[in-house]
Amino acid sequence: MKKLINSPANVVRESLEGIALAYADCLRVCFDPSYIIRKDAPIKGKVGVISGGGSGHEPMHGGFVGFGMLDAACPGHIFTSPTPDQMVSAGKAVNGGSGILYIVKNYTGDVMNFDLSAEMLREEEKIEVATVLIDDDVAVKDSLYTAGRRGVGLTVLTEKILGAAAEKRMSLIQLKVLGDSINASGRSMGVALTSCTVPHFGKPSFELAENEIEVGIGIHGEPGCRRVPLASADEVAEMLIEPILNDLPFKIGDNIILFVNGMGGTPLIELYIIFRKVARIAEKHGIKIVRNLIGNYITSLEMAGVSITALRVDDSLVKLWDAPVNTPGIRWGI
Amino acid sequence: MKKLINSPANVVRESLEGIALAYADCLRVCFDPSYIIRKDAPIKGKVGVISGGGSGHEPMHGGFVGFGMLDAACPGHIFTSPTPDQMVSAGKAVNGGSGILYIVKNYTGDVMNFDLSAEMLREEEKIEVATVLIDDDVAVKDSLYTAGRRGVGLTVLTEKILGAAAEKRMSLIQLKVLGDSINASGRSMGVALTSCTVPHFGKPSFELAENEIEVGIGIHGEPGCRRVPLASADEVAEMLIEPILNDLPFKIGDNIILFVNGMGGTPLIELYIIFRKVARIAEKHGIKIVRNLIGNYITSLEMAGVSITALRVDDSLVKLWDAPVNTPGIRWGI
Repeated sequence: MKKLINSPANVVRESLEGIALAYADCLRVCFDPSYIIRKDAPIKGKVGVISGGGSGHEPMHGGFVGFGMLDAACPGHIFTSPTPDQMVSAGKAVNGGSGILYIVKNYTGDVMNFDLSAEMLREEEKIEVATVLIDDDVAVKDSLYTAGRRGVGLTVLTEKILGAAAEKRMSLIQLKVLGDSINASGRSMGVALTSCTVPHFGKPSFELAENEIEVGIGIHGEPGCRRVPLASADEVAEMLIEPILNDLPFKIGDNIILFVNGMGGTPLIELYIIFRKVARIAEKHGIKIVRNLIGNYITSLEMAGVSITALRVDDSLVKLWDAPVNTPGIRWGI
Repeated sequence: MKKLINSPANVVRESLEGIALAYADCLRVCFDPSYIIRKDAPIKGKVGVISGGGSGHEPMHGGFVGFGMLDAACPGHIFTSPTPDQMVSAGKAVNGGSGILYIVKNYTGDVMNFDLSAEMLREEEKIEVATVLIDDDVAVKDSLYTAGRRGVGLTVLTEKILGAAAEKRMSLIQLKVLGDSINASGRSMGVALTSCTVPHFGKPSFELAENEIEVGIGIHGEPGCRRVPLASADEVAEMLIEPILNDLPFKIGDNIILFVNGMGGTPLIELYIIFRKVARIAEKHGIKIVRNLIGNYITSLEMAGVSITALRVDDSLVKLWDAPVNTPGIRWGI
């Protein structure tokens, strides 16, 4: 295992210490239990937006804490759910009196621990909590990590849009409704060219032959829907975007935000080639890409691969997408 | 070779087509000869800032075209210098009547071709051209690709700062002086954990044993100064930052911008761990990190590794660093 780490047991803690040192101007990191929080939290009258999940997907979620996006993020160990005490502490810290919104990716551990912590915040702290569950992955139903569809790339777009809406002082119930509608309007799918190696295990999570790719891969390296021979970028783009477009389904005249995401080990130059083909396919279907995001935002350590997310948007969602945001991972308008 | 490409010969062209589709709001891509240009170029009265070099280092340079940074970038084939006709065409396209500034990394091919094109712009177009040469790599003197020191991470910081200065209508001679002083105040060094594979060759550029790293690696995978056994993140951080600090040398009381750059295949979580240690070493030396940049900005395709750049800054440089910038790769303040 070749990694720039000191010991597998300290990867998450030491990376959090690095984040704390690098971004002290806009966020704080708390330990035991660990969470990352906006420096100016709690903000009176604003819903506190919290997400979290296993580490290893950086910059998600900790890199999305800041003005216009998350109030707090709770990092678990690599590919492991955070524990309820993390969300309870984060919830208390960002509580501005208008409730807490959780954005949770649909993995069994995450759902259970966020739910437990919501109960604790409600009962012990009298804080209202609502949850938006993201389950956008069209590749597989039920998998190693979850019942139902997995939550993947749409999470990033949802955090951006709901973060902007919360910044505009949208209420908890409005945010919950908006979040559910975003989840109902977005779909994703990914492919892996290589595995990743979880530091604690020290060897690749799975084996892929030199001429094989895993279509429908999960963000923890869990199986997708099939293995096929290595294909061209154009073929891969088609394998991913067609099931996405057919699933919702997206229709002629739809406006979308298109998100081409690298899994961590894929160079940008390849993501541009994928974007090129997806844009052409979307155009052929009469679907208009009104905004895009291209880069490594929801990763699987050093896995080589790409995921695509399409989100149908109207003008009000585009306005929230364009709203100012200032986080380590996504920054514009400020 | 496992890559999301269609054919090795088309990688650069197709990625440029993807960039053109994705960022049509802020830039244009021209072909035959190819260059990327700000959508609002030429800007009357403003020096046109141009950089370029081999592709495979994305987002550098094309991803740095836009308000507050580059007016144009000229992409060569992977790890291959662009040709003079690209710079001549780009120069004519961004000429606002106040001259052209080249930012060139010190590689023999780049230097020769940028010089040739400068001659052509001067003689045939009567356009003034000045060049800032970046040679910040403390690892090796003279290498496979260049005479003298190589130009690496400092290029990114220089493009940001000179881009901001040009935006403020600094003159060509002022920009040249400022650029040379930046080059004199910044130092870099990198390490590779794995090789990268140039599509055209189809196999790794070099071999590294499973327990070996290459210290002082170049951004084309050219040899560094030594191979050592795989070390901890803290040890690697020390191997890189100590030679950097000793070379300038940086002194007690210096303010620096610290740039921790991933080579393409290194997850952010590892870059944070490196930042953590470098920040502690800098503090021990009495050096203050006043700004930082952490991420994959000057890459070597999918190489796993990291480079560190330290640039001594005063308040005026920090102000230029903070100035608004709007490019695909670096964006803030807008």
